[in-house]
Amino acid sequence: MRISTLSIGSELICGEVIDTNAGHIAELLLGGGLHVQRHLTVGDHEPDIEEALGELAPKSDAVIVTGGLGPTVDDVTALAAARATGRRLVVNEALKEHIRSFSAKLGGGHATDRQAMIPTKSTVIPNPTGTACGFHFIHRGCFFFFLPGVPSEMDRMLRETVLPFLYERVPHRGFVLTSFLNVFGLSEPEVDGLLKGAFSGNSAVRMSICVTFPRIRITLRASGDAEPLARTRLQEAADLVRGRLGAAIFSEGSETMEQAVAGLFGRRLLTLAVAESCTGGLIAKRLTDVPGSSAFFLEGAVTYSNAAKERLLGVPRAILETRGAVSSECAAAMAAGVRAAAGSHLGLSVTGIAGPDGGTDDKPVGTVFISLAAPDGSWTKGFRFGGNREDVRTLTAWTALDWLRRYLAGC
Amino acid sequence: MRISTLSIGSELICGEVIDTNAGHIAELLLGGGLHVQRHLTVGDHEPDIEEALGELAPKSDAVIVTGGLGPTVDDVTALAAARATGRRLVVNEALKEHIRSFSAKLGGGHATDRQAMIPTKSTVIPNPTGTACGFHFIHRGCFFFFLPGVPSEMDRMLRETVLPFLYERVPHRGFVLTSFLNVFGLSEPEVDGLLKGAFSGNSAVRMSICVTFPRIRITLRASGDAEPLARTRLQEAADLVRGRLGAAIFSEGSETMEQAVAGLFGRRLLTLAVAESCTGGLIAKRLTDVPGSSAFFLEGAVTYSNAAKERLLGVPRAILETRGAVSSECAAAMAAGVRAAAGSHLGLSVTGIAGPDGGTDDKPVGTVFISLAAPDGSWTKGFRFGGNREDVRTLTAWTALDWLRRYLAGC
Repeated sequence: MRISTLSIGSELICGEVIDTNAGHIAELLLGGGLHVQRHLTVGDHEPDIEEALGELAPKSDAVIVTGGLGPTVDDVTALAAARATGRRLVVNEALKEHIRSFSAKLGGGHATDRQAMIPTKSTVIPNPTGTACGFHFIHRGCFFFFLPGVPSEMDRMLRETVLPFLYERVPHRGFVLTSFLNVFGLSEPEVDGLLKGAFSGNSAVRMSICVTFPRIRITLRASGDAEPLARTRLQEAADLVRGRLGAAIFSEGSETMEQAVAGLFGRRLLTLAVAESCTGGLIAKRLTDVPGSSAFFLEGAVTYSNAAKERLLGVPRAILETRGAVSSECAAAMAAGVRAAAGSHLGLSVTGIAGPDGGTDDKPVGTVFISLAAPDGSWTKGFRFGGNREDVRTLTAWTALDWLRRYLAGC
Repeated sequence: MRISTLSIGSELICGEVIDTNAGHIAELLLGGGLHVQRHLTVGDHEPDIEEALGELAPKSDAVIVTGGLGPTVDDVTALAAARATGRRLVVNEALKEHIRSFSAKLGGGHATDRQAMIPTKSTVIPNPTGTACGFHFIHRGCFFFFLPGVPSEMDRMLRETVLPFLYERVPHRGFVLTSFLNVFGLSEPEVDGLLKGAFSGNSAVRMSICVTFPRIRITLRASGDAEPLARTRLQEAADLVRGRLGAAIFSEGSETMEQAVAGLFGRRLLTLAVAESCTGGLIAKRLTDVPGSSAFFLEGAVTYSNAAKERLLGVPRAILETRGAVSSECAAAMAAGVRAAAGSHLGLSVTGIAGPDGGTDDKPVGTVFISLAAPDGSWTKGFRFGGNREDVRTLTAWTALDWLRRYLAGC
């Protein structure tokens, strides 16, 4: 089945808003074995939309259109759809009722009948969470689906109406299942090298490696005529990648590094205190992004000044004066200090020079020390991270969280 | 001039990567008075690219293509460009030399001549920062530009070669200048209401209001035949908006809230300490994102536990026991406590229930108290923010930073 998508919106075509709908639709369809072949974007300009629809029809078996179904005069998708396919716009009474009751529920008196006008010979696609319903019809053998541009509304209507409709009509479409494995601590060439030839000759599995700084995401897609077959192939593929990359895989699916760390804390019943200098609260912020983190995260200290390092963490003045605040000795004292002060099982610290200023010949921008103090020992290591201030802070936080993960997982 | 863009990449068409190039190109062109009319995306599939190029040519005076110029066998844009326009692929010697010397500089021995193959009768678009050079040619009256998909390389090549080329050929294109005004603390309907009719009857100014939670961005575009005219119109338009929205505008252009706050700290020569409960370091993180923040940011305390609030901030146990950790009394004690401990001019605190658990009938999820302690007084206020955990944390941090901004700016 040849599928095209069309995004409509002047805010998209002039770059004010980045279109995420097209990619989302493609990803959802792929899960059901359907492939999007082309994606087109035009502004809220009736002739452009009409032309785009006329152009996509002969090249596609299905066209999924998003945007331009709102209540304002800018929204002309329904009109363009009618004109492009020789239909008229008529008021749909059920739709009118839906819009009125939905507007009343929101307490708004601005319900207009404009959104109740859809092309003749089309079927309404219900929108449970908004006034902008969609519609679909068939024209010259091509299925046309029109959905609003609001991502959450579009997503639900796609899953509840469009996908079941398409799946029913393409019964032998095959199955494509997807897994994501998330890697930290290896470079792209290293990952490439380790996975080289892993799936050569296996046409049922497709692997792609995508760098999303500072992590690498490995996408595995396995296809099969039946779902169990695709699932088995996916599991085997994932096992192969796990075997080659080992502990560098910090999570799977959409799990973040901080969620992986929080999950391990939950299983180990340990507590943590964090002392941050150059990351300025980023590590604490990321850990407390996770719901329930108060069970293990006792406290954090953002100690930018030397005075704060002395007073809050008990870093000896001698270390600050002789070795400096950015030193392995200071990092170790910070980790031990925050652990003792908070009475936590683990103490984690980072200190470094994020830049752009503050670097020296001896300790250039990007010099960072990370330390972990635990009941069974303590570890401190120096790093020299590249990039700008944000990169250095990001890499420092990721590396420190990865230390926690590896300590807790024993790997 | 009718302009189209074409993004090429299987990772784009299957939704693995969101295409930001198309929007970026449109925005840059708009600054020079050029409008993109349609944007198409296809995968790295030679016949699809060829078809797309053939289709866009008669509808466009210029087509800007990105992606598919890399060194791997997946990259087939040059081949498709040649086939679509009846050209042959030939090795460009200058390009070959560029690729070899660039690869050598990077220490990589994997230079291939593949990227040196471009269609006959085309001109190289230099890439100062990568191996993938672009090329351009004219075919049936349409200018075709081919650029790599890496955003930073594409951006530079667009600015240095493509834009000057187009500007030279469209001398009477007019000028469109853009301003962004960033608003916090007003809802979209409030902003709509305050700006209603501001530019009715003024066809030279276009205003759009875009919600990027939790802030609102107002885009003003003023056009004129000459640049000074467009500039004057833009300044008048911005003044009008500033007059109506007043202190709700926290910054202009790409300046963030934390940059605005840091700028004000710099002018006032004051210092700050922050005590965070529910935001878990997010406020400290955002302030220290700004280079040079160590000049005013002395320290931060992430006090999740009651013990930490007592020990680090000196919150009286009686308050924690009778009023609770989420109370205006506790917030005030935290702000005063962190200010006294750090010896800073200002002390800022937040305490609240970010959820998803921890809410009660009396203090539901979203209940937050913010307090600011300053030499000339102290202020504490309760809020009830909506949304999920992330929304509550985001709104709390934004509101607290906005308090700092308004205090420092005296507005």
